[in-house]
Amino acid sequence: MAKHTIAILVENRPGVLTRVSGLFSRRGFNIESLAVGTTEDPSVSRMTISVEGDDQTLEQITKQLYKLIDTIKVYDLSGSAAVDRELVLIKVHANSETRSEIIEIVDLFRARIVDVADDSVIIEISGDFEKVTSIQDMLKKYGIKELVRTGKIAMQRGLTEHVQRS
Amino acid sequence: MAKHTIAILVENRPGVLTRVSGLFSRRGFNIESLAVGTTEDPSVSRMTISVEGDDQTLEQITKQLYKLIDTIKVYDLSGSAAVDRELVLIKVHANSETRSEIIEIVDLFRARIVDVADDSVIIEISGDFEKVTSIQDMLKKYGIKELVRTGKIAMQRGLTEHVQRS
Repeated sequence: MAKHTIAILVENRPGVLTRVSGLFSRRGFNIESLAVGTTEDPSVSRMTISVEGDDQTLEQITKQLYKLIDTIKVYDLSGSAAVDRELVLIKVHANSETRSEIIEIVDLFRARIVDVADDSVIIEISGDFEKVTSIQDMLKKYGIKELVRTGKIAMQRGLTEHVQRS
Repeated sequence: MAKHTIAILVENRPGVLTRVSGLFSRRGFNIESLAVGTTEDPSVSRMTISVEGDDQTLEQITKQLYKLIDTIKVYDLSGSAAVDRELVLIKVHANSETRSEIIEIVDLFRARIVDVADDSVIIEISGDFEKVTSIQDMLKKYGIKELVRTGKIAMQRGLTEHVQRS
């Protein structure tokens, strides 16, 4: 079982997300994270799915994806030839005693504080999985009150193959 | 019709995404963006859904969501009391003549260049919808080769209501 990052270009239509996620769940694949948004062309959405599974099942899913009328293109972006990133918001307990320590950690990770309240701060951080996990581990002792992640997005480094829409 | 940002805490189980997105598509709601990832508790996932619709339909969907056994909590995070962010990767055409102009734009928006190739760069930017749209508009003239967005995530400012799991 290996981790895979798959990008799927789809027509931006109602129900497309249900059809695509249904393909994965019917085969017992648990989607670890999924991010979907529009692309430079508003009629096209791009889904990035992180999933664990063997190569053979993944190949079958790719074939099934191409059978959906919504699917334009499927890419496997696993491996080092791709840039991958996710964005995370972390609300952490902070008071007058701990705030400066937390700011130090935030600076160290080139993260940002985006909201400050009496007893908490919200930190925004982007990076790969390891970076996000590291800051999460360092903030744990202050008390993480809330955490939300976008899920991974990925893009092939260097040259892009141009997608010809049929 | 208003834009809504909804956060849904769900049990991290296979098929939950299909069940949740199915609720939206059956009612003809087109999901503009969706981001799903694990939270500080790995058995719990958090979905952030951006959707356009009237308040009444949204209320009905909230009720339906609570009927799913996977649903722990539904929040409406529309409005100013929430921090919202998304992450975008943009691959833009760049050569020796345009690269320094592009770097200026990147600095202006506090974005980052995360990959450089002969004829392109990949830019990472996080922010709200307006910021992301602005940099996209400024980069258009160089030629956007590829664009992927995570979709919006959001978090209530200040105090967090603690969720009691049943």
